[in-house]
Amino acid sequence: MDANTFARLVITCDDRPGIVAAVTRFLFERDANITELDQHSTDASGGRFFMRVEFQTDRLDVVPEILGQEFGSQIGSPFAMDWHLHFAARRLRMAILVSRHDHAALELLWRWQRGELPVDIPCVISNHPDLEAAVAAFGIPFLHVPFSASTQAAAEAAIREHLGAVDFLVLARYMRVLSADFVAAFPNRIINIHHSFLPAFVGGDPYRQAQSRGVKIIGATAHYVTAELDQGPIIEQDVVRVTHRHELDDLKRLGRDLERQVLARAVRWHIEDRILIDGNKTIVFA
Amino acid sequence: MDANTFARLVITCDDRPGIVAAVTRFLFERDANITELDQHSTDASGGRFFMRVEFQTDRLDVVPEILGQEFGSQIGSPFAMDWHLHFAARRLRMAILVSRHDHAALELLWRWQRGELPVDIPCVISNHPDLEAAVAAFGIPFLHVPFSASTQAAAEAAIREHLGAVDFLVLARYMRVLSADFVAAFPNRIINIHHSFLPAFVGGDPYRQAQSRGVKIIGATAHYVTAELDQGPIIEQDVVRVTHRHELDDLKRLGRDLERQVLARAVRWHIEDRILIDGNKTIVFA
Amino acid sequence: MDANTFARLVITCDDRPGIVAAVTRFLFERDANITELDQHSTDASGGRFFMRVEFQTDRLDVVPEILGQEFGSQIGSPFAMDWHLHFAARRLRMAILVSRHDHAALELLWRWQRGELPVDIPCVISNHPDLEAAVAAFGIPFLHVPFSASTQAAAEAAIREHLGAVDFLVLARYMRVLSADFVAAFPNRIINIHHSFLPAFVGGDPYRQAQSRGVKIIGATAHYVTAELDQGPIIEQDVVRVTHRHELDDLKRLGRDLERQVLARAVRWHIEDRILIDGNKTIVFA
Amino acid sequence: MDANTFARLVITCDDRPGIVAAVTRFLFERDANITELDQHSTDASGGRFFMRVEFQTDRLDVVPEILGQEFGSQIGSPFAMDWHLHFAARRLRMAILVSRHDHAALELLWRWQRGELPVDIPCVISNHPDLEAAVAAFGIPFLHVPFSASTQAAAEAAIREHLGAVDFLVLARYMRVLSADFVAAFPNRIINIHHSFLPAFVGGDPYRQAQSRGVKIIGATAHYVTAELDQGPIIEQDVVRVTHRHELDDLKRLGRDLERQVLARAVRWHIEDRILIDGNKTIVFA
Repeated sequence: MDANTFARLVITCDDRPGIVAAVTRFLFERDANITELDQHSTDASGGRFFMRVEFQTDRLDVVPEILGQEFGSQIGSPFAMDWHLHFAARRLRMAILVSRHDHAALELLWRWQRGELPVDIPCVISNHPDLEAAVAAFGIPFLHVPFSASTQAAAEAAIREHLGAVDFLVLARYMRVLSADFVAAFPNRIINIHHSFLPAFVGGDPYRQAQSRGVKIIGATAHYVTAELDQGPIIEQDVVRVTHRHELDDLKRLGRDLERQVLARAVRWHIEDRILIDGNKTIVFA
Repeated sequence: MDANTFARLVITCDDRPGIVAAVTRFLFERDANITELDQHSTDASGGRFFMRVEFQTDRLDVVPEILGQEFGSQIGSPFAMDWHLHFAARRLRMAILVSRHDHAALELLWRWQRGELPVDIPCVISNHPDLEAAVAAFGIPFLHVPFSASTQAAAEAAIREHLGAVDFLVLARYMRVLSADFVAAFPNRIINIHHSFLPAFVGGDPYRQAQSRGVKIIGATAHYVTAELDQGPIIEQDVVRVTHRHELDDLKRLGRDLERQVLARAVRWHIEDRILIDGNKTIVFA
Repeated sequence: MDANTFARLVITCDDRPGIVAAVTRFLFERDANITELDQHSTDASGGRFFMRVEFQTDRLDVVPEILGQEFGSQIGSPFAMDWHLHFAARRLRMAILVSRHDHAALELLWRWQRGELPVDIPCVISNHPDLEAAVAAFGIPFLHVPFSASTQAAAEAAIREHLGAVDFLVLARYMRVLSADFVAAFPNRIINIHHSFLPAFVGGDPYRQAQSRGVKIIGATAHYVTAELDQGPIIEQDVVRVTHRHELDDLKRLGRDLERQVLARAVRWHIEDRILIDGNKTIVFA
Repeated sequence: MDANTFARLVITCDDRPGIVAAVTRFLFERDANITELDQHSTDASGGRFFMRVEFQTDRLDVVPEILGQEFGSQIGSPFAMDWHLHFAARRLRMAILVSRHDHAALELLWRWQRGELPVDIPCVISNHPDLEAAVAAFGIPFLHVPFSASTQAAAEAAIREHLGAVDFLVLARYMRVLSADFVAAFPNRIINIHHSFLPAFVGGDPYRQAQSRGVKIIGATAHYVTAELDQGPIIEQDVVRVTHRHELDDLKRLGRDLERQVLARAVRWHIEDRILIDGNKTIVFA
């Protein structure tokens, strides 16, 4: 598929008859070929409407900026839509924040290296120096920004300066809690992996909590970060069975595999514009 | 949701630009409110197009027959569509064929009784008399039609007479192989549950085959019946882990639970027009 | 397998060298053939020891009572064991408490009827009259014991009188909270099915809680009942994926299937003496 | 746990009363503390007996070689056992063979690097030069041994010379079929990852086969290699759901994740002596 002519249109608005007809007609009139269309209404009447359309156009005269302007004026505004048009040729810029545990970050870098994640990665930032060599092996700049309670403001300022014009952040086992101000600068654009099946075991040391409660299944959760710890919209979750034989280290080992898988899926979906926000929940057109 | 005004439109045709726009405009012009829309193209260009639309209309002047005629002449024919319009108010008629194992048939009857499967069940037919009382408890006629190699033609004729104007059949562990002629009378309208993870373990005694091969996971498969045994389009599959500790009876016990779940899902999707045929494969808009 | 000569020995004690040797030698000296042996130590040293042995003996002179007395004096007491010997020929007596939702109770009755659960069921007790006919169809006495806040003491007394010498109780969606006194009379002998993935969504209406939180996976949990609501030792859990498309009724429908499966597994394991208690956790030798 | 005093004893023999008693008494007399014991009999009478015992001893006078000699003469021979004693202090030597796809091999190397797989890796051998740099980054020698139909004998001889005294081999997507002679030199000591749910889709291009058949679940299988292609004892399998939306590349991408997980589990179990052979099946004490 030619990435230059391949685009995704993502729409959220109040539901009413005629939205799909209007959008698809608009695309048809520009010779766009719809290759995937997903739609969801929260209610048969009076609900919210969500749609994602993948399309392709070979017409040389279709310029992304102009297409966007036309869509906005002819469809977006009349329907009071919250909409977003993303031509795949523009690669998103994704930064990774990590602490000492390397598995989640390395998994993303490894998938990026083999072409599974079509993004640019301007940098990996850590509050510890440990992963410098591992990150360098991928040819990605590694930045060490110490982060403690007393230096939080300065640390966050430094991180934001390093990030530059990034599209989204991934907290790949970044063990510091970011300030509400920092989070507010990236609404629904910070993905975190939490090592439990939320809402069970919020907060610290969830594997220890899980072992203590004696659950028979453990999980991992990828979610967007909001000001409230571990309370943001859930993107993806997965689980694995455990038994009385599994000690804490086993839970951590099994959990690492879950975290890698769950985070990789969430990041992929974010890159492909498959995640729409519905209050504190997500619509995932996967 | 008012079943009288709730309908599903299912479409298959060669892909080309403008299909979604044409169909959704047609519905919009009749004040139909689309509540769910799924679309799939097998290829970015030159492939086949599949769509399922759920919609609702409160206009009293929308008569199912007329809506269908108009859709056919205005959209279906111009696009050379294979299409189907199903108003939910018309309940499908589903017959069940079963031999001695009762679990799959009882699961369907139990779900039907509690309202999970909105169909009419004209009869349950068996080549054994064993399940008469169990079926009678649901208030459904039970018919015993013996079936042996020498009586197959007469048996199949008797079954067809009993069936009458049925919409589809479910083979809920019916252990006789139906003739190609019989099958041809119900194209993609006979659902079978096979007690293995197809294409592994085709044919008889799949649990014994599975145990003999030492697999670590067993499965069940619901598929449409075609002339070739266990080769029809797969609708749904599911699996469960097994270990060296599981004896043949354990595999059968675990497998029964799988079969019940897998068959119930397949039947539900068939009733809701969620299964489209793509050669020997299915598109399931679940 | 001849149930008359088939037995299970379940042991819990402080760990120390020689336990397995002593127990297996005791059985060997009586010509018992061990068909399954599971053992677990919570720590390499200084922990607790758990063991379950299935054995069979054809010696006519091995009398269950005497075997138990000998085991107690020769092995149990010297090792300060908490132990239990259960000859399979003695069928456990299991009572079922249920409210209005029939799926969990019917699943147990159906499995019991087909021989999957080798117990005697003296009665099904409900705080509603609704399920009388459904239970009667299995030939099991149904008792209606109304239960409200003001009548709780009398209701629980009536239930206990009806139960008689029951071995364990199953709360198959029994929606009343039993008193601490009642619960204390059946320590680790009341199995409840909770319709969430505990510890997430404790308390009422867990499917609504799950939908509100936007989880991507829902679950069900079977656990022993303790005085603290939904906090007892977890026996078994299972989960199913959900998406934004699933409405509350869909969660309930999918959840019912989970509840049936999870409860049936827990009950089966309890009957087979596979569940050992380790504080507020379970060891399940499944 | 002190690896120097930690050992595993693995036993296979004809079943008869008294085996567990004899083995555990032998260990008890040497002050060995059993930390895990698994036992399986294929039949209540007349079957085969399988056992794995993990134990620890702090006695300085327990010498591995002498313990083995004593066990052999006192227990192993009288019971005609096929047995194996493995002190964890002796790390197994594991070689990896790989072709061009790097995911399975890198997954093993990554887990080895972080201490999840306690083995020594003398070398990675490939019939292509592509992965030289990636392997070198782990500090492991990489050997390129071209392998074609005409050079097979010489190639296999070269591989065996490079391997030296290796304990077992892992075919981490090694796309050449090894000769029966080569395989015979490593009985049940070559682990292969096959990218399908065996016995479905034996042979080449299983993802394409899966897509063509329209299955709803794909899988991966780790097995020991025997002379017959894809027919050896299955160690582990896992699956993932797919839909009509998944194109061939998606199946390969999802499959890679399965292969990594399944192979890593199989290798771990092999290292920990958890896999026993029962004809063409495995007993996995996991």
